[in-house]
Amino acid sequence: MNALDKLLIAEDIRRLKARYFRCLDTKNWGEMERVFGSDSVMDARAENRTGGTPDAHIHIGSVNIVVFLRTHLEQVTTVHHGHSPEIDITAPDAATGIWAMEDMLRWPEGGPLKWMHGYGHYYETYKNDGQRWYIQTTTIRRLRVDSL
Amino acid sequence: MNALDKLLIAEDIRRLKARYFRCLDTKNWGEMERVFGSDSVMDARAENRTGGTPDAHIHIGSVNIVVFLRTHLEQVTTVHHGHSPEIDITAPDAATGIWAMEDMLRWPEGGPLKWMHGYGHYYETYKNDGQRWYIQTTTIRRLRVDSL
Amino acid sequence: MNALDKLLIAEDIRRLKARYFRCLDTKNWGEMERVFGSDSVMDARAENRTGGTPDAHIHIGSVNIVVFLRTHLEQVTTVHHGHSPEIDITAPDAATGIWAMEDMLRWPEGGPLKWMHGYGHYYETYKNDGQRWYIQTTTIRRLRVDSL
Repeated sequence: MNALDKLLIAEDIRRLKARYFRCLDTKNWGEMERVFGSDSVMDARAENRTGGTPDAHIHIGSVNIVVFLRTHLEQVTTVHHGHSPEIDITAPDAATGIWAMEDMLRWPEGGPLKWMHGYGHYYETYKNDGQRWYIQTTTIRRLRVDSL
Repeated sequence: MNALDKLLIAEDIRRLKARYFRCLDTKNWGEMERVFGSDSVMDARAENRTGGTPDAHIHIGSVNIVVFLRTHLEQVTTVHHGHSPEIDITAPDAATGIWAMEDMLRWPEGGPLKWMHGYGHYYETYKNDGQRWYIQTTTIRRLRVDSL
Repeated sequence: MNALDKLLIAEDIRRLKARYFRCLDTKNWGEMERVFGSDSVMDARAENRTGGTPDAHIHIGSVNIVVFLRTHLEQVTTVHHGHSPEIDITAPDAATGIWAMEDMLRWPEGGPLKWMHGYGHYYETYKNDGQRWYIQTTTIRRLRVDSL
């Protein structure tokens, strides 16, 4: 890979993550499935707000990941913003990324939580299967969470 | 256009929108005029907080757009942030873009509104007139608006 | 410098600032030192929340800058986000940048301040010493500061 190839991949991955954010907040679950692949892993153990065993918070494969997101967020007004990515291309078909993030969730009336405002970083890997880049693994480490 | 040309255009357009945000929040109206062109259209119908007919909220041309922004925002402490753009170059002189956004407005004492905090996406098109890129059309779709 | 060289430098500088934000909020002071150089200048006069003469708020050199940041922020939960950079490459080893910014600080119980939420722009210059890019000068101009 030359320098231009790396810039092009970094741009592709920034757009991939931009689609993730947009699909999440506009509830576009069909397009969201194409952000992930069949071997993608979303590690939401640290996001556990619903109880259950730790393993219940690891979601594998685009279908399961979208089911998880949809189940928890379809009825929630969500805003997710990502900032100042650090993307490293480690092979022509592999990359890592760190994104600063902020999310603001507002639940419908009557639930246990009213709102949540969190801050942290996404730690991710990306893979190219020959057709497209997708998010291969993703997890969040939080700096701060406020909620009511 | 080759891949490098597209990257260069995307960078130009990211900077164009960065100038829009900076000029808006620092009230630099002279520089703001150069962010738009004579055929630019700002569709602020969904942002209508002042009443009037829908047509009164469509602003055409850089001069009128800046008059509109200045009239409504000169006395308001504003912060506008844009995130994770998705820019598509559709022709050597044309592009589309989606930006996640957040705006925080604080009005002077004594008005009907004290503050507003909004979230959504800009949906925009960009044009190059042979000299420079400018915002050709812009509108916001809101995810959430809080105000007092 | 050709157009590709400039894109590569801009990407390097965006990542440099991303490291600054990440190191600041994760308190990674060792990595933070490498964000600056021995002639770097952090002008924090406008950020003066601790009294003292103006000169006491100009920090020179990576070691002193990190001592300053660590002393004031080690015990503080901080979130710093940067948006829509405007980076100009002015020479092969020199550049300028403007970043929209937002910071949210929360102090431990018992101090004079509970929290601060600020907005503004970083105005910076960057230098390449032949080995790497670093932040040469940095200052913030605020649009708005809320605190309790």
